[in-house]
Amino acid sequence: MIKQLREQKPLIHCITNKVTMNDCANALLAVGASPIMADDEAEVEDITSICQGLLINIGTLNQATIPAMLKAGKKANELQHPVLLDPVGIGASQLRYQTVKQLLQEVHFDVIRGNISEMKALMNMHTLSRGVDANEMDVLTDENIDENIAWLQQLSFKTGAVIAVSGAIDVIVDEKRAVVIKNGCCEMSQITGTGCMLSAIMTAFCTTQPDHLLEACAYVTSLMGYCGELARQKMIENHLGTGSLRVYLMDYLSMVNDDMMKEGMKIEKR
Amino acid sequence: MIKQLREQKPLIHCITNKVTMNDCANALLAVGASPIMADDEAEVEDITSICQGLLINIGTLNQATIPAMLKAGKKANELQHPVLLDPVGIGASQLRYQTVKQLLQEVHFDVIRGNISEMKALMNMHTLSRGVDANEMDVLTDENIDENIAWLQQLSFKTGAVIAVSGAIDVIVDEKRAVVIKNGCCEMSQITGTGCMLSAIMTAFCTTQPDHLLEACAYVTSLMGYCGELARQKMIENHLGTGSLRVYLMDYLSMVNDDMMKEGMKIEKR
Amino acid sequence: MIKQLREQKPLIHCITNKVTMNDCANALLAVGASPIMADDEAEVEDITSICQGLLINIGTLNQATIPAMLKAGKKANELQHPVLLDPVGIGASQLRYQTVKQLLQEVHFDVIRGNISEMKALMNMHTLSRGVDANEMDVLTDENIDENIAWLQQLSFKTGAVIAVSGAIDVIVDEKRAVVIKNGCCEMSQITGTGCMLSAIMTAFCTTQPDHLLEACAYVTSLMGYCGELARQKMIENHLGTGSLRVYLMDYLSMVNDDMMKEGMKIEKR
Repeated sequence: MIKQLREQKPLIHCITNKVTMNDCANALLAVGASPIMADDEAEVEDITSICQGLLINIGTLNQATIPAMLKAGKKANELQHPVLLDPVGIGASQLRYQTVKQLLQEVHFDVIRGNISEMKALMNMHTLSRGVDANEMDVLTDENIDENIAWLQQLSFKTGAVIAVSGAIDVIVDEKRAVVIKNGCCEMSQITGTGCMLSAIMTAFCTTQPDHLLEACAYVTSLMGYCGELARQKMIENHLGTGSLRVYLMDYLSMVNDDMMKEGMKIEKR
Repeated sequence: MIKQLREQKPLIHCITNKVTMNDCANALLAVGASPIMADDEAEVEDITSICQGLLINIGTLNQATIPAMLKAGKKANELQHPVLLDPVGIGASQLRYQTVKQLLQEVHFDVIRGNISEMKALMNMHTLSRGVDANEMDVLTDENIDENIAWLQQLSFKTGAVIAVSGAIDVIVDEKRAVVIKNGCCEMSQITGTGCMLSAIMTAFCTTQPDHLLEACAYVTSLMGYCGELARQKMIENHLGTGSLRVYLMDYLSMVNDDMMKEGMKIEKR
Repeated sequence: MIKQLREQKPLIHCITNKVTMNDCANALLAVGASPIMADDEAEVEDITSICQGLLINIGTLNQATIPAMLKAGKKANELQHPVLLDPVGIGASQLRYQTVKQLLQEVHFDVIRGNISEMKALMNMHTLSRGVDANEMDVLTDENIDENIAWLQQLSFKTGAVIAVSGAIDVIVDEKRAVVIKNGCCEMSQITGTGCMLSAIMTAFCTTQPDHLLEACAYVTSLMGYCGELARQKMIENHLGTGSLRVYLMDYLSMVNDDMMKEGMKIEKR
């Protein structure tokens, strides 16, 4: 799949948070796509029209950006571009919660990617999330995975979106199917932006696989995790820390190919 | 102290500048805390309520953010969270000067961290600051340090805040005490964000030492400086430049521990 | 020239895009200048008055920032500071196009730097630009360079600005002269911000060479390209990817000197 992406070089419109927008731009370039960041209401329709996919990430949400998100989302729907929502910290404020509610009412999302606490907030269930990280009581394990898949598939049915849940174990579901990915390492949560970057490159892979969104989401989740594993290994070999982990992660995103993925991919159907 | 921080993992609400917010987020994660960046008036009270400390940094100040700073600051005061102010470039514009004045009137700050020129502007004294860097005529030296400590302690008395001054020599004072830190290296000023990162992680250490703010500020200033020394050494060994210095600095922030600190710490009481 | 820059340490006011502002700040510091980023209408005149040069970059343009760009530009003109425009993605939206039109009417720019598609949009010619990258049909080659120089010199005449075109081959023209630079490597387009960083450091070099803008622009374009070549070589030697390329590029920007430039510079007059 990555070979195909590098040939097609999709241009991705990102309305994303200010903390990690540079990381997202570099991650898109590393895998072979191109980023364009634009969040002013007056230009988002023009911008999305020259792109192939749209990412909406609500980290560092500002009221002025909400109309831009709605306009871009509707335009992308009209043009049948894949649209991905990353509901960062949806449980952290009323503003984020209400904004996501409105986005889900007015825009169709093809994929929603986040951690398990964010998905629980989306399901309007009891959650104790402490901000942008998943709550410790919400962690997916081999023991609770099947019961979680059940309500995640309901969420997929409710929203019409593929649901991509990131964590120690990653789960991707649509209404009927579910896959589990066991790539990645806990050190990835010690650098900011790994989730945001995954959302950005997931949008890119969806543009090249419009009829296989679940497969595309599973593949790119595995790819990101595997690159993280390789980066962690190099960090440890060189006795370095998280600054280098971040650099090596980007290195591997730019060097990974389908042969390496065959070796490292840990995807299983449920 | 860093062991304790890594156990408690405080969540820090950062209203900080756009240039270095990614660096601040990664620095907080490196030392074991967690960042959440949010600056919209409509959500800052919600956000600060789920955090343990608040950082307000006025670099890249925008008028729309000022009410958010005031609301977050008041809420954090109400919740007795430590609040830190970084008055970046306060001498560079009337907007920054007036904003800091209003912030000091309406919010209690536990710590104010900046360079000596910024502190002079706070004292309403004559200063020739040329923007965000300290003016060359304002440099702290072994010769002038005692007379400077005198007015810095007045500033601490006036504001009720611990005053943390960064420079070639670092000085931390409260109304009665003063400590001097001689860690760090001049190459750290050749990368953007070292001051901002120090403010961010200083806020985190204050949450774990609410009754020992001066000590916490001294410790974290020494920690940042020592990590800079180690990073500089590795940069020189490898014949590399400031791009690598920045990466190694983050590496050491994630690897430093209390044993290393015992070795490297250069803190002296005055 | 870089020795002189490091002695003079000009302070550069940057109104620039949010994606790469950290890269621009670090690039300015690496070559020996100092950055100050400020884009609120209420403070840009104060800020520009303490600086030596002004950069306006319209990537991630927001309507609120347009009056700030106009005010800062007029103030910098009044103070006779060099002013550089980077019309990022001018062909991507009406907002960007109209904003650049207004900027060119109300502010005098000493230099305009961008890719060939952006320059074509400025000339109001037919262009098929797909966002922030140059269109493939617009690439400068040895064959079409002379006919392109002709209309670029007209653009220079129309605007009164030195025109700096970045691409596989770089061309710098004023009304009468033209130079061609053949430094750089294609891998530089796989990391975000190389164009923005070039604009930032170009502004800095213009402040030290106010009477030799064409020469300054040619020199800094060659310097950036040569640092990219050295960074690419080190990336390949170490079997690393674009994360490391970005770090090494910054390393070389901080290490490059006039002796290295004599070795690597590939500038020719046309």
